[in-house]
Amino acid sequence: MTRALTVTGARLDGVVGAVRTVDGRIAATGPQVGPEPGDEVLDAGGGHVLPGLVNGHTHAAMTLFRGCGDDLPLMRWLQEVIWPAERRLTADDVYWGTRLAAIEMLRTGTVRFWDMYWHGEAVARAARDAGIRAAVSSVVIDGGDAAAGRSQRAAILADLDRIAEAGALVTPTLGPHAVYTVSPETLTWLGEVAADRDLPVHIHLAETEDEVADCRAVHGVTPTGLLDRCGLLSPRTVLAHCVWCDAADLELIAARGATIVTNPVSNLKLAVGDVFAYDAARAHGIPVGLGTDGAASNNSLDLLADAKFLSLLQKHRANDPAAMPATETWAVATGARAPGLGQSGALVPGAPADFVVVPSDRPELGPGALVHNLVYAASGSVVDTVVVDGRVVVRGGAVADEAEIRAEAYAAAARLGVT
Amino acid sequence: MTRALTVTGARLDGVVGAVRTVDGRIAATGPQVGPEPGDEVLDAGGGHVLPGLVNGHTHAAMTLFRGCGDDLPLMRWLQEVIWPAERRLTADDVYWGTRLAAIEMLRTGTVRFWDMYWHGEAVARAARDAGIRAAVSSVVIDGGDAAAGRSQRAAILADLDRIAEAGALVTPTLGPHAVYTVSPETLTWLGEVAADRDLPVHIHLAETEDEVADCRAVHGVTPTGLLDRCGLLSPRTVLAHCVWCDAADLELIAARGATIVTNPVSNLKLAVGDVFAYDAARAHGIPVGLGTDGAASNNSLDLLADAKFLSLLQKHRANDPAAMPATETWAVATGARAPGLGQSGALVPGAPADFVVVPSDRPELGPGALVHNLVYAASGSVVDTVVVDGRVVVRGGAVADEAEIRAEAYAAAARLGVT
Repeated sequence: MTRALTVTGARLDGVVGAVRTVDGRIAATGPQVGPEPGDEVLDAGGGHVLPGLVNGHTHAAMTLFRGCGDDLPLMRWLQEVIWPAERRLTADDVYWGTRLAAIEMLRTGTVRFWDMYWHGEAVARAARDAGIRAAVSSVVIDGGDAAAGRSQRAAILADLDRIAEAGALVTPTLGPHAVYTVSPETLTWLGEVAADRDLPVHIHLAETEDEVADCRAVHGVTPTGLLDRCGLLSPRTVLAHCVWCDAADLELIAARGATIVTNPVSNLKLAVGDVFAYDAARAHGIPVGLGTDGAASNNSLDLLADAKFLSLLQKHRANDPAAMPATETWAVATGARAPGLGQSGALVPGAPADFVVVPSDRPELGPGALVHNLVYAASGSVVDTVVVDGRVVVRGGAVADEAEIRAEAYAAAARLGVT
Repeated sequence: MTRALTVTGARLDGVVGAVRTVDGRIAATGPQVGPEPGDEVLDAGGGHVLPGLVNGHTHAAMTLFRGCGDDLPLMRWLQEVIWPAERRLTADDVYWGTRLAAIEMLRTGTVRFWDMYWHGEAVARAARDAGIRAAVSSVVIDGGDAAAGRSQRAAILADLDRIAEAGALVTPTLGPHAVYTVSPETLTWLGEVAADRDLPVHIHLAETEDEVADCRAVHGVTPTGLLDRCGLLSPRTVLAHCVWCDAADLELIAARGATIVTNPVSNLKLAVGDVFAYDAARAHGIPVGLGTDGAASNNSLDLLADAKFLSLLQKHRANDPAAMPATETWAVATGARAPGLGQSGALVPGAPADFVVVPSDRPELGPGALVHNLVYAASGSVVDTVVVDGRVVVRGGAVADEAEIRAEAYAAAARLGVT
């Protein structure tokens, strides 16, 4: 039996019509389209229907640590706040932290997130229950100890299987944390697993100058060079940050077809010392997406807020107000510049039925060009309705069971001793 | 007859009680406080009651030009978009543009704005009708022609009188545009008027490197030095931008007691080339406030979004995640670091009854410290209720007559030919 949703009163590129979805895919759009018998019908009230956003790098459950230990030097923050709390972390905590994150992401128009955090199977269940798409990592850290890495292999593979059990909204991925926390031998094994099973790989790369200097000192190559040496750079690879990649690194990333996810807000908040070279990466032909990073280093999961940072920091970096126009940033935020992240940014027949509705009467959205106002003037609070996989998951700006989820997540944060 | 409003269920520093206001001033706060017979009563439902924000520099009616001509080089933007439209601008256009701006400012928690735009009397009427406090300029531009400046003097003084007619919410100010658009003779005359009448002066200063170089070439001093030479630097002076002030400039500003308003988002969007030196200004003891600048160069009027930019850019500038903590930024945004802007940032008996209510159940406001979450995680959309001068001007996140105001403002924008 088919499952069909038709959104009427839907403004697409200025023209009001309908979007009909069947079994989680867009079947038809336009002024001639209407609901068929048996369709679920939703009235968008003349609101703009737009592609959903994709958050290319986050640690969703770190909403549990939001607002805790901000403004501390990095090592004090990790040693005094985050690590002690993470040592107590249970799968249940991660489940509720991820549900809390999903409320915020969905309400602000994100339809898919790329996650890296402990207890991946709990992240996967939370995404499934929230109705949001997620690329969920089996996280790998061996502390640079290859023997420790070998002993974890069976558990990593078992994790992938449990993540996959969450169903079609969830994509299992391999999540080696970084070149400074995972041994080359384990990275190499992960590269083989990724190739054998055609799995995405999600890793932090070249976030700080120290990471690059240390890698050169220990391995004689940049972090990008090390990943390539381990067979981990491929079209399946998603590289978070890449603030400190040089021209040779970018050339290598481009040659291997990997994707970069830039996290401008997190990079500023943690003061990593430079701004990602968007133009250089694109000049090399590298796919680029946008991420918030975790709520402990942003502290928001509202990707539209980060989109504004992306545009404005690139203008600042280029010393040119014409750099990084809003239309380019919108393409990045919707995944149109990074097919590997799984969202096309286009609402055409056959595409996944993932979209948002933005009412046309919000004061910050006019006058002037809609996409400019979305990037420069709006926050994600302009989103009223969100559809993922043809299901309505946000209605009237709210998600089901918000109060219960918040209570559970806050109780988890209290147990972890961070509030 | 007194006019009293009591807000019950009000959480102040975590304790639930009430805030009672009488004739536009806070009369009492705390758990023992309750409404007296005849009071208007508003239930905050356990929401946080916080000081309102002050937008220290904007051109409110430029909401009419929002999203028009973004991402253009500065001179093309001015010559092709803004100036042609401004030549057609009427007082009516400015009135509706300011009303549109006031919706957005009030909804996002701003209780006072410092404005500089044509048709000041229309700005003043709009502020009065919206119920928002405003420091409204009589704008002065003589194109560097002292004779032209002399011929404008009577009109400038008449403007001040008409601005003052709007009543107690409005503070008339003198608004010389900048040292490159106003002659030294006119600046000197304005300094005398300001001193005679004890009027605030609101001016752009040292926004770009070119402005400083040109001023040195023409006048032999920095823009700051020129203002001082003209007698325009005093505790009454509010200086917008000051990105390109050097140490001697900051020393002079400090010695004269003037206030700086930083506009981090506008500075990035127009790519002025540097970041305001907050720590240096404060080390000199200079009062500092925060501004959005106009909606054509931001493009939002949501001061909380700009607060995040302020903190994060200062961390980036200092290369230190501990720089510019959220608590400091909150103090700047609420006016507590710049008494000259007219808001104290404190809710104590005797203070003006200007405050906001933020519901405690918003997903982005927990867990962790409230002020951290307001600065780093929230947008102004978390504000539910706003009280200015003891009157409720935002309720349930909405302002009265929004649809009518938007329609009038959009019609004005269409007449001006920018959409």
